[in-house]
Amino acid sequence: MTAIGIIGCNGRMGRAIRTELEAKGLPYAGGVDKGEGDLSALIQRSDVLIDFSTPAALKDTLEDCMLAKKPVVIGTTGLEEAHHHLIDAASHTIPVLQTGNMSLGVNLLAALVESAAARLGDDWDIEIVEMHHRHKVDAPSGTALLLGEAAARGRGIALAEHKESGRDGITGARARGAIGFAALRGGSVAGDHQVIFATDDERIEIGHRAENRAIFARGAVKAALWLGAQSAGRYDMKNVLGL
Amino acid sequence: MTAIGIIGCNGRMGRAIRTELEAKGLPYAGGVDKGEGDLSALIQRSDVLIDFSTPAALKDTLEDCMLAKKPVVIGTTGLEEAHHHLIDAASHTIPVLQTGNMSLGVNLLAALVESAAARLGDDWDIEIVEMHHRHKVDAPSGTALLLGEAAARGRGIALAEHKESGRDGITGARARGAIGFAALRGGSVAGDHQVIFATDDERIEIGHRAENRAIFARGAVKAALWLGAQSAGRYDMKNVLGL
Amino acid sequence: MTAIGIIGCNGRMGRAIRTELEAKGLPYAGGVDKGEGDLSALIQRSDVLIDFSTPAALKDTLEDCMLAKKPVVIGTTGLEEAHHHLIDAASHTIPVLQTGNMSLGVNLLAALVESAAARLGDDWDIEIVEMHHRHKVDAPSGTALLLGEAAARGRGIALAEHKESGRDGITGARARGAIGFAALRGGSVAGDHQVIFATDDERIEIGHRAENRAIFARGAVKAALWLGAQSAGRYDMKNVLGL
Amino acid sequence: MTAIGIIGCNGRMGRAIRTELEAKGLPYAGGVDKGEGDLSALIQRSDVLIDFSTPAALKDTLEDCMLAKKPVVIGTTGLEEAHHHLIDAASHTIPVLQTGNMSLGVNLLAALVESAAARLGDDWDIEIVEMHHRHKVDAPSGTALLLGEAAARGRGIALAEHKESGRDGITGARARGAIGFAALRGGSVAGDHQVIFATDDERIEIGHRAENRAIFARGAVKAALWLGAQSAGRYDMKNVLGL
Repeated sequence: MTAIGIIGCNGRMGRAIRTELEAKGLPYAGGVDKGEGDLSALIQRSDVLIDFSTPAALKDTLEDCMLAKKPVVIGTTGLEEAHHHLIDAASHTIPVLQTGNMSLGVNLLAALVESAAARLGDDWDIEIVEMHHRHKVDAPSGTALLLGEAAARGRGIALAEHKESGRDGITGARARGAIGFAALRGGSVAGDHQVIFATDDERIEIGHRAENRAIFARGAVKAALWLGAQSAGRYDMKNVLGL
Repeated sequence: MTAIGIIGCNGRMGRAIRTELEAKGLPYAGGVDKGEGDLSALIQRSDVLIDFSTPAALKDTLEDCMLAKKPVVIGTTGLEEAHHHLIDAASHTIPVLQTGNMSLGVNLLAALVESAAARLGDDWDIEIVEMHHRHKVDAPSGTALLLGEAAARGRGIALAEHKESGRDGITGARARGAIGFAALRGGSVAGDHQVIFATDDERIEIGHRAENRAIFARGAVKAALWLGAQSAGRYDMKNVLGL
Repeated sequence: MTAIGIIGCNGRMGRAIRTELEAKGLPYAGGVDKGEGDLSALIQRSDVLIDFSTPAALKDTLEDCMLAKKPVVIGTTGLEEAHHHLIDAASHTIPVLQTGNMSLGVNLLAALVESAAARLGDDWDIEIVEMHHRHKVDAPSGTALLLGEAAARGRGIALAEHKESGRDGITGARARGAIGFAALRGGSVAGDHQVIFATDDERIEIGHRAENRAIFARGAVKAALWLGAQSAGRYDMKNVLGL
Repeated sequence: MTAIGIIGCNGRMGRAIRTELEAKGLPYAGGVDKGEGDLSALIQRSDVLIDFSTPAALKDTLEDCMLAKKPVVIGTTGLEEAHHHLIDAASHTIPVLQTGNMSLGVNLLAALVESAAARLGDDWDIEIVEMHHRHKVDAPSGTALLLGEAAARGRGIALAEHKESGRDGITGARARGAIGFAALRGGSVAGDHQVIFATDDERIEIGHRAENRAIFARGAVKAALWLGAQSAGRYDMKNVLGL
């Protein structure tokens, strides 16, 4: 059986993944967190790694994984362009899967949104609304942006040029072709997202509700098991799901 | 039967009200619009007036109604403090009903929101989300603000001090006691509103959907018929509904 | 320009289509209804026909269209197997488009549902809920069934063997692989549909809202214009939309 | 501090309540389950009891509570008329709180539904739709019925005479004054409920979402703390909430 090691094993996601491994009876190869623990040794004894740590730690992780020829699933957020170049480079040597959302449902949603946007003209206005718990500090959510990117890709436009966010006051009429974002915050909501396509007299609504964070851990483990059987290359959740 | 006259008879709402009168078989006393037509004569031959014109015309309308002792329903939007003083003064002589939303459903919704807010502590976060057609130029909608006022009243706070609107970027965690607003725009949506009360592990959602603008015309006519039987005073839709 | 003739021109849909032709400035070739009017002459002077009449009239309509080599869009409901054989036969001679729902949005929805069902295992439970006005006499709606067929097709099963409808009382736990249906009735709702895919800890919701019946007329006219340019064959709305 | 004893301490709810007591730092007086443990001793050393066991055990529990003069919160489901008579009798001696749903949100929802139903005529159709996990064996849910009772009470009718459930096939048009029920089943949904009031051209929707079962445990503990300070009598969650 595939032994999974966790980089960032004591964070919120690291703990959720350990719970998931236990629930599924999968071997846990151990973990490191914030410099505690021997990263190289962990990578040596793991079959696949899951990384939910920090962007700053990514370079070392990728180098050690390449040395040991071990596949790695990267769920760390806040990556910048330089990090993506490191991932691209590593993917010539080892299998690497990087994604902004590990949930299977959200990734399918993104595929449906891209497909719908590709088939509907820009007389269908696109709006994305999300709700998250009261502690979330940024808006729109990363997943809302991921869905917006999918819509823009389907429509063949650049999201950055058509994003309309934070409406307040005298906004003027909606710009044709805009992709709108709205953010709700409250309670303990793990993450609800809805993409609305609205035209004269009708609307299509495509949404996802996460009841808790277990789905992200489940997706990470599913991705790790899948990645263990791949050859070198860069992957995302769409590959795992065959989307 | 009560003959109803319309001030602003050719605007979007004026036309909808004429359609409603016809549908209900109620006598239409005639109308004036943008200076076309004899306002005093119209008021003389009407039993009740409905005004969906402009703030600038309000003074003359109220004076003529007071002279003729005729009740008037005011649905004109964009009123400022001075207009409200005029209405207060007129209401010593005649029955006047003024409201920001003529829909019976929305007014009941506001009563429910106030009641819920009064019974829930501020560990229940309040969020208000609305969707309107792509031509709407302001956000949040007047009705969303009306619902926010109801929530603030229920909680015993001032909306202006707790309003959180147009979230975008790094917002920080939600402020305790905030009332959040989010606006969606697209297609031909006549007006959807939802008030969410969210706390740990549960949410209450109270909403209203308008399929078209007929409900506003229907509410105006219902208000006019009711107002025809009242004595001098200032009223709003809550009085019509017995809320 | 394409002149469109209507069979069943005085019914609810016939009138809506005439309104749509007028709004779009498209030529109306005239109509027949319940035996009133000369069917053959109408077909002769039309470029394309739209039929919203009765199953009993279908045979004559198809024969006259074949004689005149005119394409026909069929929106008549309640067709049985024999009618479908007639359509198949006619489609060797002329272009025929038949569909249970003319709305572009609903047809795209069905494509998305099929696609989602094909990609999700049967640990994702499928539920379909719809709401229609209080006058509707059957449940589930034809469109709900159309969506259920799409889901079943995506999953590679027969809807008839997995349909679970009208839950009430002691039902026992949900059968694995079932496709559930629920019907809400009330007010003047033109038609809301939602397909829910629910698994442990997450849900995907794909829905459509019709604000009124104009979208069905609009779809019929769009289908007629498209069909006028096709060669003989049997088509449905998916062909019009390129789905 | 109030020490709470649990009758049925090892069931799903019993365990959730123990977790809640621990989280809140409240003293747990111990528990009994399925005949294991000394009921009388437990009641002696508890300040308040919470009972989530079986109807069959109710008689003994009430008798022992009366002997010891201890308040008891009853969340056991499946009670019949005879059990309610026992509760009524006991409430002359001790404080007893019995309810079908411990969630604070659901109980507030019921109050809002009753209030809305009292203010809207029967030209507003009432529909109740709920979704629960795939293991639930009955429909509609007890909470849906509790909401239906609230609607019927508000309208001044008997639910049993107006209940319309399990629509399927040729149902005929909706009966005026009916209260409709629809049940969705799938995934791990802890419990979503929505009451829809629909009339011509508008709808009011009042709903509740439970993210998990913690809210029921939380409500039970809140009820127990409240009940410890009351005199003899029969109460429900509305009293706890001041609804």
